[in-house]
Amino acid sequence: MPRPFNFSAGPAALPEAVLQQAAAEMLDWHDASGRSSGMGVMEMSHRGKEFISIAEAAERDLRELLAVPSNFHILFMQGGGLAENAIVPMNLAGPDAGGAVDVVITGAWSQKSAAEARRYADVRVAASNEADPGTGPCTTLPSPTGWALRRNARYVHICSNETIHGVEFHELPDLSALGSDAPLVVDASSHILSRPIDWARVGLVFAGAQKNIGPAGVTIVIVRDDLLDRALPYCPSAFNYKNVAAAQSMFNTPPTYGIYIAGLVFQWIKAQGGVAEMERRAVARASMFYEAVDGSGGFYVNRVAKDARSRMNIPFFMADERLYNDFLSGAKAAGLLQLKGHKSVGGLRASIYNAMPLDGVRALVGYMKDFQRRHG
Amino acid sequence: MPRPFNFSAGPAALPEAVLQQAAAEMLDWHDASGRSSGMGVMEMSHRGKEFISIAEAAERDLRELLAVPSNFHILFMQGGGLAENAIVPMNLAGPDAGGAVDVVITGAWSQKSAAEARRYADVRVAASNEADPGTGPCTTLPSPTGWALRRNARYVHICSNETIHGVEFHELPDLSALGSDAPLVVDASSHILSRPIDWARVGLVFAGAQKNIGPAGVTIVIVRDDLLDRALPYCPSAFNYKNVAAAQSMFNTPPTYGIYIAGLVFQWIKAQGGVAEMERRAVARASMFYEAVDGSGGFYVNRVAKDARSRMNIPFFMADERLYNDFLSGAKAAGLLQLKGHKSVGGLRASIYNAMPLDGVRALVGYMKDFQRRHG
Repeated sequence: MPRPFNFSAGPAALPEAVLQQAAAEMLDWHDASGRSSGMGVMEMSHRGKEFISIAEAAERDLRELLAVPSNFHILFMQGGGLAENAIVPMNLAGPDAGGAVDVVITGAWSQKSAAEARRYADVRVAASNEADPGTGPCTTLPSPTGWALRRNARYVHICSNETIHGVEFHELPDLSALGSDAPLVVDASSHILSRPIDWARVGLVFAGAQKNIGPAGVTIVIVRDDLLDRALPYCPSAFNYKNVAAAQSMFNTPPTYGIYIAGLVFQWIKAQGGVAEMERRAVARASMFYEAVDGSGGFYVNRVAKDARSRMNIPFFMADERLYNDFLSGAKAAGLLQLKGHKSVGGLRASIYNAMPLDGVRALVGYMKDFQRRHG
Repeated sequence: MPRPFNFSAGPAALPEAVLQQAAAEMLDWHDASGRSSGMGVMEMSHRGKEFISIAEAAERDLRELLAVPSNFHILFMQGGGLAENAIVPMNLAGPDAGGAVDVVITGAWSQKSAAEARRYADVRVAASNEADPGTGPCTTLPSPTGWALRRNARYVHICSNETIHGVEFHELPDLSALGSDAPLVVDASSHILSRPIDWARVGLVFAGAQKNIGPAGVTIVIVRDDLLDRALPYCPSAFNYKNVAAAQSMFNTPPTYGIYIAGLVFQWIKAQGGVAEMERRAVARASMFYEAVDGSGGFYVNRVAKDARSRMNIPFFMADERLYNDFLSGAKAAGLLQLKGHKSVGGLRASIYNAMPLDGVRALVGYMKDFQRRHG
């Protein structure tokens, strides 16, 4: 029987080939030349040559996939996106207290980032879509030309793909063209590796791995090297980017197994054709899904403005709320899992990350049409 | 061929049965009644009923194994022991700045804890073994009756087993008998679940999981409920014990796969006979090993005072430093892995955690005798 299609927003589906390799190597990892290590990856000292080779390959492959310039450090950290909302200001809003931080709010995740940064900095909301008229809150992208940016901001924060509200930046803002020389901080958790990143516009990108990469418990931070010396005095040593960068992510014991799985995902993406191919597939998946929603005559609705729609996370709704339970139980029976919407917005949500084959979207769309026929 | 014996100090060996179950379930986790979930554990939403059942079972089994009283919360967090050295004072040294914290230094890990707590609190070293005469630094346990404890301390910190120096508290200090009513904070990373914990003497126990439990990236915190309201204002939300406790460790996405593996280890310990059986085996392993070292006529030396010797981590040395490389390469060829000492103290180290069978120690001792015969 084929595996069900898993539409979880995160932790999310992994490529089957990655899981198969992980299972096969669980008791005995072999190196590139096929030599047995006598240990599973979970049992290796992070200081040993075996695990160091795994971590170095993961870093190298990620750098290649995203064309990360040499003046950016790639860090494998812990805590997830929510912890990073504190770790970023503790590292970038210093070295003295009270620094200015501008945040653009486009959904639940940038709201959280702004709230958390207020513990450490003088936060101002540069723009917000919370009062979007008509279509509902958090359904458009505020145009960068209207952002209220401060000259002295220590950084500007955006969430480039809002996992809950389904709003995605399809181009990163060029802050210098807007008169700001602050570094741009990008929370790319839920769409990293689905499109290229324009590094000329970026100071720091972070991403919890459990959406478009795989294992929960790994946070990827890619930071420009001139930003390593701005930490507040109470930034914990283990979360100080300068320490982590100097030790190639081995300042303390990293989440070794998660890094290994992330590395397998990077290899899988390379074998598929890289980020360009991931983007092509993402466009194909999202187009198929939005066409089905928009073509349902209003039975299914996605409220996000077309130019702001996420390719990865698609919240959608039905007019009759009583149908949701039927929809979800029927979907599960049809092998379509984890489609319930986030509790803060309700309804349904399809998360269609890199690991989702187009056949999964096709099956979902087929199920939706059938469901509409029976209930419409 | 049998698997080699792995003496890594951490990440460390896991029970073979745990790895086998994890490999078998990698693509499709089954619930207790044998029903397929259609997902691997890594792919499950942490909010779904499947993963919640895994996390609840892990918490319940750990509570049973360590007889954790109902007024203590069990938290699954991220960051490891080093991050926890900051997270503990950010949670317990408040609510206002400048609180007094007393630290007892017995080796490298309590040294790190004291250094990190200085960012957040007025730290004083209550006792230290750094100037131990004769046998060398950090080789004894300072007697609690000599500890310089302050009446107003917000907590007293000890590391109950020093992974690097091989010094272990065989009894937790009774602070109230020493005239202090401060809560005792215990870093038990490298010997948790190898002996019971006297909860009447404890305010908080933490442990990075990657030594005696298994997967790196999970930190276990067991905290008394009256200590949840003392956080400093800049404690990150994701690391605030009160938030994490209120959300049963789901305040943000937890390291789901690591929690699952930890849960399998807890089940394995229960099946073996619980913590009492783990302690019996630890005594047997450590006795066999120390007898071999002490009976080697000085060819092998462990410098720790007998009443302070760790059952889990045993640094040992040879008079002729040139022999270490030979020892290590011969050991590896004999299927005895990761015996190199920590770089800060040199020499050799055998870490013999719960997952190490007595046969592993027997094999190591046999190899050591043979090596001595050839080089002594």
